[in-house]
Amino acid sequence: MVRVNSHYQMLRAGYLFPEIQRRIKAFTAKHPEADLIRLGIGDVTEPLPAACRDAMATAVEAMGTRAGFHGYGPEQGYHWLRQAIAQHDYRQRGCDVEADEIFISDGSKCDTSNILDILGDDNRIAVTDPVYPVYVDSNVMAGHTGPADDQGRYGGLQYLPLTADNDFCAPLPATPADLIYLCFPNNPTGTVATRAELQRWVDYARSHEALILFDAAYEAFIRDPELPHSIFEVEGARDCAVEFRSFSKNAGFTGTRCAFTVVPKALTGRTSNGDAVSLWQLWSRRQSTRFNGVGYVVQRGAEAVYSSAGQAQVTRLVTFYMENAAIIRQQLRSLGLAVYGGQHAPYVWVRTPESRSSWQFFDQLLQEAHVVGTPGAGFGAAGEGYLRLSAFNGRAQVEAAMARIARCNLR
Amino acid sequence: MVRVNSHYQMLRAGYLFPEIQRRIKAFTAKHPEADLIRLGIGDVTEPLPAACRDAMATAVEAMGTRAGFHGYGPEQGYHWLRQAIAQHDYRQRGCDVEADEIFISDGSKCDTSNILDILGDDNRIAVTDPVYPVYVDSNVMAGHTGPADDQGRYGGLQYLPLTADNDFCAPLPATPADLIYLCFPNNPTGTVATRAELQRWVDYARSHEALILFDAAYEAFIRDPELPHSIFEVEGARDCAVEFRSFSKNAGFTGTRCAFTVVPKALTGRTSNGDAVSLWQLWSRRQSTRFNGVGYVVQRGAEAVYSSAGQAQVTRLVTFYMENAAIIRQQLRSLGLAVYGGQHAPYVWVRTPESRSSWQFFDQLLQEAHVVGTPGAGFGAAGEGYLRLSAFNGRAQVEAAMARIARCNLR
Repeated sequence: MVRVNSHYQMLRAGYLFPEIQRRIKAFTAKHPEADLIRLGIGDVTEPLPAACRDAMATAVEAMGTRAGFHGYGPEQGYHWLRQAIAQHDYRQRGCDVEADEIFISDGSKCDTSNILDILGDDNRIAVTDPVYPVYVDSNVMAGHTGPADDQGRYGGLQYLPLTADNDFCAPLPATPADLIYLCFPNNPTGTVATRAELQRWVDYARSHEALILFDAAYEAFIRDPELPHSIFEVEGARDCAVEFRSFSKNAGFTGTRCAFTVVPKALTGRTSNGDAVSLWQLWSRRQSTRFNGVGYVVQRGAEAVYSSAGQAQVTRLVTFYMENAAIIRQQLRSLGLAVYGGQHAPYVWVRTPESRSSWQFFDQLLQEAHVVGTPGAGFGAAGEGYLRLSAFNGRAQVEAAMARIARCNLR
Repeated sequence: MVRVNSHYQMLRAGYLFPEIQRRIKAFTAKHPEADLIRLGIGDVTEPLPAACRDAMATAVEAMGTRAGFHGYGPEQGYHWLRQAIAQHDYRQRGCDVEADEIFISDGSKCDTSNILDILGDDNRIAVTDPVYPVYVDSNVMAGHTGPADDQGRYGGLQYLPLTADNDFCAPLPATPADLIYLCFPNNPTGTVATRAELQRWVDYARSHEALILFDAAYEAFIRDPELPHSIFEVEGARDCAVEFRSFSKNAGFTGTRCAFTVVPKALTGRTSNGDAVSLWQLWSRRQSTRFNGVGYVVQRGAEAVYSSAGQAQVTRLVTFYMENAAIIRQQLRSLGLAVYGGQHAPYVWVRTPESRSSWQFFDQLLQEAHVVGTPGAGFGAAGEGYLRLSAFNGRAQVEAAMARIARCNLR
């Protein structure tokens, strides 16, 4: 009989978000009248910017003519989009990133997982704890780990705590790591890394010949002009880092699907023979063979993010969500809760009251306030005792959620 | 230093289509005035059906309102699209396929490659020869093969010839296979499998507990109502087959990106412990963790394929391309060439004249006729001595291409 990938059997329970959906479904089956407010999954709620819609509508119309029809595009994305990204997201910030180092894709979740396809099975891997679950689960699926312990930590992975105790600056790996996942502004804690902090990681990676997988999906939410948006703003990063970015959160593309990955041309890894090979070439080959590019209409929509109208609209969207984050921070603080993040990221990371577990607090908010958060423990053992609230919702919903939480018994 | 996936080093030269692009680029650099006619890459050329465009335009507009905005959708696709597919593509043809056995994706190329993620590394694999290169290359990348020999055949794969000599009915595997890739209507040969032929494969798979990966991306081009469009039209296939389908070729979605994979719920494979596990569950988990679904606008476009207007428009498109195929078949036959396929598939498989190699004939047509084909050898050793011509182009282009080929020296 055909054999399956047995490593999947090591995955714990459901992937976090489906498990949350399951609990919501069970709750609403019992309470169909409940008007849930979802501050759980980090999904945007506000309309797609007009500039993007206009560009998409124009592209849809063009697809109706033989001259304007677009079939297969380059698997790596259209040059005009790669060029716009290189110019606006990188060169304008002083980063030396070329258009052909940018690979357009349908999502950062896909990319952060797919990047493992071009890497070896014998890398020593470090992740922060808490961590975006896809980094871990995709390594479990690829057979890079041992089984999970009682707290959900998989054997073979090095977990670097990212908690209030260390001011959300994870320690460098105690034993050498070859592959390091970093996400700043951080999901789930909503905290951010300074330039000095990123420099510390780049210096580590260069001295250990390690590769940093840098997830910058939330860079647009950074408010302080001194903070870096890209790891490539840091000296030496081109020698040791790949960066993932997305249009999901800044331009509301979660249901439209466009993202990109930056792979510097000079970046190398070693084969089992010890030969250095270009990661850019491996990723190009991977994408050519296993991916077909992003649809033309969607890429035109993404390009419009960089028009002046698009930039103004994205700024308004981001500002709106960050006002929500400020409301959440302030209201929860006024209830006596300890809150972190939410200043340069759309997530607020809340300490659960009275030593409740993450899932207990999740269930309490679901049942008493009809508010959906995300249990911190779902992001890793060090996330236990926290809950993540997302700023992605309408103003009225955020205010109502805060009012309802204020009426909960938090003692 | 970070280790890479060393298996990539075993891949031969470039992936076929990029290599063709390279030769075209070199040719046009020397002959910028040449008016190339592309019958190479199987990319459609005619406008996206109006029904799809209308649905997409409406969806784009809806994304501009808070009520009509769609963020993350289900990773497996929207139920309304899965339902439409189950009804029109399966139940109407008497196939027992449920909506939740249909997984919407951004392409069959991706899916036929990604399916390996949930399968073991120790399956004995059989492919036809010639073969769609992605089936082979994705196995090479996953480390399922040895190095390639001089003819391009990778160690560890069982190649089943699909040639004029066996009337394009590949022999059953001589040594048992656990995983069998089949594509009918076939890419590249343009030939098709009868119900009896598919039954022979299903019977083999059931008696050997093997899994068939059935690529039906070209089913819409079948003209004979007696021929099966789906492997699930064959008795027992639900116990042994996964099917891949796409909107790329029927509805012109190559640049829009929507496809789907059917995984029957009862289908199982074995873990290394010998436990039977559900492939449906593994695929659900893989897609939840490593994929984010297809954009809302695109899924609305795909749904419109099943409207009555959409069905009429797709039928017209398919008929148009199949008229092209008939012209190609007829004209090349009149030149004394042996041609196959092209009756139930948009590909015509041409024997090269006078024992020219595939690449020699490719280069001759490029240089003398300014016509781009695809060398059969690019699809495998048994494709040597053939060239694939695609029916995907305008009528004037197809007729001009045939007139130019008629002026070539085919002796």
